[in-house]
Amino acid sequence: MSYNSSVKIYLEDTDAQGIVYHANYLKYFERARTDVLDKGGVGLARAQALGFRFVVHEMKIKFSRPAKLGDVLSITTDMKRSSQFRVTFIQVAKRDNEIVVRADVDVVCIGTNGDLVEITDAILPGLGS
Amino acid sequence: MSYNSSVKIYLEDTDAQGIVYHANYLKYFERARTDVLDKGGVGLARAQALGFRFVVHEMKIKFSRPAKLGDVLSITTDMKRSSQFRVTFIQVAKRDNEIVVRADVDVVCIGTNGDLVEITDAILPGLGS
Amino acid sequence: MSYNSSVKIYLEDTDAQGIVYHANYLKYFERARTDVLDKGGVGLARAQALGFRFVVHEMKIKFSRPAKLGDVLSITTDMKRSSQFRVTFIQVAKRDNEIVVRADVDVVCIGTNGDLVEITDAILPGLGS
Amino acid sequence: MSYNSSVKIYLEDTDAQGIVYHANYLKYFERARTDVLDKGGVGLARAQALGFRFVVHEMKIKFSRPAKLGDVLSITTDMKRSSQFRVTFIQVAKRDNEIVVRADVDVVCIGTNGDLVEITDAILPGLGS
Repeated sequence: MSYNSSVKIYLEDTDAQGIVYHANYLKYFERARTDVLDKGGVGLARAQALGFRFVVHEMKIKFSRPAKLGDVLSITTDMKRSSQFRVTFIQVAKRDNEIVVRADVDVVCIGTNGDLVEITDAILPGLGS
Repeated sequence: MSYNSSVKIYLEDTDAQGIVYHANYLKYFERARTDVLDKGGVGLARAQALGFRFVVHEMKIKFSRPAKLGDVLSITTDMKRSSQFRVTFIQVAKRDNEIVVRADVDVVCIGTNGDLVEITDAILPGLGS
Repeated sequence: MSYNSSVKIYLEDTDAQGIVYHANYLKYFERARTDVLDKGGVGLARAQALGFRFVVHEMKIKFSRPAKLGDVLSITTDMKRSSQFRVTFIQVAKRDNEIVVRADVDVVCIGTNGDLVEITDAILPGLGS
Repeated sequence: MSYNSSVKIYLEDTDAQGIVYHANYLKYFERARTDVLDKGGVGLARAQALGFRFVVHEMKIKFSRPAKLGDVLSITTDMKRSSQFRVTFIQVAKRDNEIVVRADVDVVCIGTNGDLVEITDAILPGLGS
């Protein structure tokens, strides 16, 4: 199941090299993951109230093409269960049909005591078992 | 003439005090001004290609209420000509009907040589004379 | 009493117009105010533990000159008590001896219940009465 | 050859989960790489003037522990030539002696025409052949 979103590139996103500053793609991907959790899962604000947080544990990211001021990027977010405690999001930002950036993002869920929390269907459904 | 936009608050927008980091409101307002220029005016990317840039010269900003993770703020942008070279944007971020932040933002247009450029109707229409 | 600090301009600070993105100056000023609180006052982390936070209530800011990639700006922070509940910081960013940006920043202190907290000498000394 | 730097965590760096927002570590690492280039290499501003830019092509990053408001992280930056056109930076952020985040960052150099530029000793010395 894919989640589709988009992002317009504003001045805040760019740097003096005239392109999107590389760290900002992580923000676009995090916005998309948040929307996935807010629409189909526990929701980020509610997770906080329940005493756990989602954290990125590991990420592989490849920057293939630069994006520029005024570009509109489409973001595709897919996800799969990597273990009882870990979800991997595969996220791709495209302009037209060209890949701009792709990231594989491993996310875990941490409780108040710092322990890993199992990512159940109540937290994020549709991951399979 | 008012331009309406909205912004959802993501983790990137917040800080450890649990609220939106104050500097980020300037980003939301700048996004809205960019949209105004892109839709009705010269457009930011095209302005760059033509050799001038828009810069904020002065700003007064009042932070009335904190916004939080997951909030959706509505942004209203009004503008008026302050002089031949200067436009004042009045921008208000609200949650429901409560004012969160209001800013009066003076913007000027600078050419490649560093001189002020007159803000004509071709650059930004609807300002009156 | 003035507090002096400095900031080097990195790619993250700049935008596609080739200059420092205007909202980022607010970060430099906030870093300086945090250092003032950490060195001479209650400290930001300790304030949080004690249940109150510092928030910018109002700000006037003037952008006089653009700063560029690689610039080193010196920041001067002065402060005065504006009322029992309010401190005004006067903060100036300079390159060499030229003013780049100046801000007058009104800060208040908010308790867990949302009420204003008096800014005593224990919180921030040296403000006079 | 290692380059050592440090970063203090301010409010701007944190998010509503009370920890450093993950994308911000990329900024700390980029600051360190910029310093390496400015001190021993061509320098970022001069590279721009010469018509080429450094871009991150690929990155693997592992977030082991959260950093918090007020923490001071030490950053270690090592580098090695991966090919004629590619440098790999190994960058580690620690608090006391614990690893907080580690990234392997592949950087390439792009000319005005979009082609790869060979990373010679004049651009960045000390990489070996």
